[in-house]
Amino acid sequence: MNQLYVDLNCDMGESFGAWHMGNDSELLQHVSSANIACGYHAGDPATMKKTLRLALERGVAVGAHPGLPDLTGFGRREMAVSAEEVYDMVVYQVGALAGFAKAEGAVLHHVKPHGALYNMAATNQQLAAAIAEAVSKVGSELILYGLAGSELIRAGEKYGLRTASEVFADRTYQQDGTLTARLQPDALISDHEVAVQQVLRMVKEGKVVSLQGAEVAIKAETICIHGDGPQALPFAQLIRERLTAEGITLTAP
Amino acid sequence: MNQLYVDLNCDMGESFGAWHMGNDSELLQHVSSANIACGYHAGDPATMKKTLRLALERGVAVGAHPGLPDLTGFGRREMAVSAEEVYDMVVYQVGALAGFAKAEGAVLHHVKPHGALYNMAATNQQLAAAIAEAVSKVGSELILYGLAGSELIRAGEKYGLRTASEVFADRTYQQDGTLTARLQPDALISDHEVAVQQVLRMVKEGKVVSLQGAEVAIKAETICIHGDGPQALPFAQLIRERLTAEGITLTAP
Amino acid sequence: MNQLYVDLNCDMGESFGAWHMGNDSELLQHVSSANIACGYHAGDPATMKKTLRLALERGVAVGAHPGLPDLTGFGRREMAVSAEEVYDMVVYQVGALAGFAKAEGAVLHHVKPHGALYNMAATNQQLAAAIAEAVSKVGSELILYGLAGSELIRAGEKYGLRTASEVFADRTYQQDGTLTARLQPDALISDHEVAVQQVLRMVKEGKVVSLQGAEVAIKAETICIHGDGPQALPFAQLIRERLTAEGITLTAP
Amino acid sequence: MNQLYVDLNCDMGESFGAWHMGNDSELLQHVSSANIACGYHAGDPATMKKTLRLALERGVAVGAHPGLPDLTGFGRREMAVSAEEVYDMVVYQVGALAGFAKAEGAVLHHVKPHGALYNMAATNQQLAAAIAEAVSKVGSELILYGLAGSELIRAGEKYGLRTASEVFADRTYQQDGTLTARLQPDALISDHEVAVQQVLRMVKEGKVVSLQGAEVAIKAETICIHGDGPQALPFAQLIRERLTAEGITLTAP
Repeated sequence: MNQLYVDLNCDMGESFGAWHMGNDSELLQHVSSANIACGYHAGDPATMKKTLRLALERGVAVGAHPGLPDLTGFGRREMAVSAEEVYDMVVYQVGALAGFAKAEGAVLHHVKPHGALYNMAATNQQLAAAIAEAVSKVGSELILYGLAGSELIRAGEKYGLRTASEVFADRTYQQDGTLTARLQPDALISDHEVAVQQVLRMVKEGKVVSLQGAEVAIKAETICIHGDGPQALPFAQLIRERLTAEGITLTAP
Repeated sequence: MNQLYVDLNCDMGESFGAWHMGNDSELLQHVSSANIACGYHAGDPATMKKTLRLALERGVAVGAHPGLPDLTGFGRREMAVSAEEVYDMVVYQVGALAGFAKAEGAVLHHVKPHGALYNMAATNQQLAAAIAEAVSKVGSELILYGLAGSELIRAGEKYGLRTASEVFADRTYQQDGTLTARLQPDALISDHEVAVQQVLRMVKEGKVVSLQGAEVAIKAETICIHGDGPQALPFAQLIRERLTAEGITLTAP
Repeated sequence: MNQLYVDLNCDMGESFGAWHMGNDSELLQHVSSANIACGYHAGDPATMKKTLRLALERGVAVGAHPGLPDLTGFGRREMAVSAEEVYDMVVYQVGALAGFAKAEGAVLHHVKPHGALYNMAATNQQLAAAIAEAVSKVGSELILYGLAGSELIRAGEKYGLRTASEVFADRTYQQDGTLTARLQPDALISDHEVAVQQVLRMVKEGKVVSLQGAEVAIKAETICIHGDGPQALPFAQLIRERLTAEGITLTAP
Repeated sequence: MNQLYVDLNCDMGESFGAWHMGNDSELLQHVSSANIACGYHAGDPATMKKTLRLALERGVAVGAHPGLPDLTGFGRREMAVSAEEVYDMVVYQVGALAGFAKAEGAVLHHVKPHGALYNMAATNQQLAAAIAEAVSKVGSELILYGLAGSELIRAGEKYGLRTASEVFADRTYQQDGTLTARLQPDALISDHEVAVQQVLRMVKEGKVVSLQGAEVAIKAETICIHGDGPQALPFAQLIRERLTAEGITLTAP
């Protein structure tokens, strides 16, 4: 039997100034890669430095988590940005975090867009291409994380980047392999055991059972763990333990 | 006779969004190095990319021009920032511009702090050290531009950086080698010929005549040309022509 | 014959910090109402105060010009803001400008949303209602300016506000009374005489000739004059003179 | 015996976007006036509206809490702002909150500057005057809260405003009636009972025992309760109960 590998990633460094968010320090004990906010939707230079150092100490792979320029909205509100504006904001944010990495004698490992930017890049070919081009220009060795089956993954491949197809433990899927929209009922999986089973099947069999009941093929190279909420920490721990118990190695791509 | 060299530098990329500032394109024909704003006091990702490309096309050395986080005040208002905050904001801004440089297949040449950050670093040892450390960590090959005779130059040397001592063509000097404060009468030299003579003496003889009438030793490795104002362009051209006519080579350090 | 009245309005106070925009002082000689930016897409407290004082000195009616929170994009990029967020940002911005008006012993006369907020409110019933409700709550005497025939005008009426239907001198119209989208050819009228004729017909006859050649009914209570561009000033003067020559009184609603 | 009155005030509405701060809802059960952040150092329109509504529901007097334009630094870093800039930023922020108050059919009761702005206004006559003038212009009925014995209180009186002299329960005082600087040991009173005794003496006798051991006269019209920290809520409750037990009426000035 082949050895199975998967990455556990989590968004981090999303505090801002005097405002605290997330349990970064604890979560870093469970994940294999960290997506660090870069100042546009969250994060500030002090937080970026601190989070990067923490992740490096724990041996967790560090990546950039660029977002839309919308602090008030936490980068969750879609904006009618042009492809060129997206290229520019990704270069800027990845470059800024790469500065901190270099200052610590490290290099960035990956890039994963945040929130509305991630969602727009999943379906909008032009914005996806802008992100992939920006990443390839600012660091051709960077791995591009994107929604499994999305335009972003396709754009990454087109620009010669290594990609990592992301799946969600606590979200349900549709027949066509897309996520159920958050506003719909049944979008979220609140039962930890159900979520764990979904993750195990995605990783071991490359399949997910859609909300409609059919099996859908899905590529699961990295699993997103949400860092906020009171259940974030126990859930991360559970996922890690169950994956490990099944002989699956947790490691950054 | 030894060949004389000096650098002409100018702050650039200080437009922001829909707001235009400066004649970057024309000034780039006259200077040998460009200090590009990084988004804190001025500049935005689109402007950074455009300015960097223009400078590279003209063969002008590109440097970062980090400032205080104060768009409304254009980075000109001193803030009670800690040394660590200064370290962080310099790494962030230099890193962001370095991202654009890398995307264009180029590398940054120097760093020159802006406005109030520049002024504070001239006399505050701790802030000067924070800037020098940040620059040395994010790129040990970067040249640190600072006021001639300032704490910033001393800090740069201490951190093993190459430094460039900056002088001003259109500002008067005090007996102790410091600039006459802007608010005082006689702080500015409005007569272009007087300014040119001051520059020539600083470059050729390493001396400046203070407002009090005595000769003061000064190290002139780079001359600051102001990019705004209606006289910016003709003055830059005049300085360049007169330095060249005297056999002085204009080149980035 | 009945006396005809119309308002000439212009967006103003769109400088920001060290960045200058527009010829507010000169344009105030030609318009009857001024829409003053409130800090979200442009404008800062100093600019708001100065612009308001200038307008009051000239006897021009002062209104608030709230926009989306997007300085970099000048409030021109649509954002997926909720109706409640729109309500909140309008109350905030109108309140801030009302503070300056009160400090000068004046009161605000009207509110006109800016850019993407204006456009979204033209067709989105919920956002239009949020703006109208915010205006009615923060000042029931305020006149709501909106695109002639838009959802915003309807929402204003529904909330018991006086409204002013806005038309454009230099934009072409479609058969259904909407503006030709900016990206299309023929969206703009560059010939001043053609623009003047369009304005005169809209004011005198309540009609505009669509791009397709048919006459369309349109309510023209206030005419938008663009404040930027080299032709802004002579065009404003021309419109004022030609309207006056036809016996039409220029006055704020 | 005369009836004694004192006000308990607390800074509130200091959440921002997705980031939460403070226990506003619970603290509102104990205080008599609330200082609501206005978006410069903390707070956003949604938070302002929500906090204002909560305070009105509880019958707590609502005031504006304007700060320096420094979200990252939470308005705690002094900035070299001019008196005119301070005037402008106070009018802007008080106006914005007054908009929300008007929308709820309420009026603002007071203004208390935040953080570095509060501190600078305690000793800088020009900045104190700028704040007092701004408050008097935007609402002559507003009560100006300032450090007891400060320039801000003097400026408020000079501009004809009602003032409220503020004292601190958990800070020690110097011989000259000023607060012990935060960086010094013994600046804070961590023992709740000691803090309560200090408050009672200040309110009942108009005296405080300085760190040096002497009694100093002090005017205590309003007591600042800190809203953050795990002890905020029990301490607020304790102060309220002890003051009430002594027959002192808690009420906004």
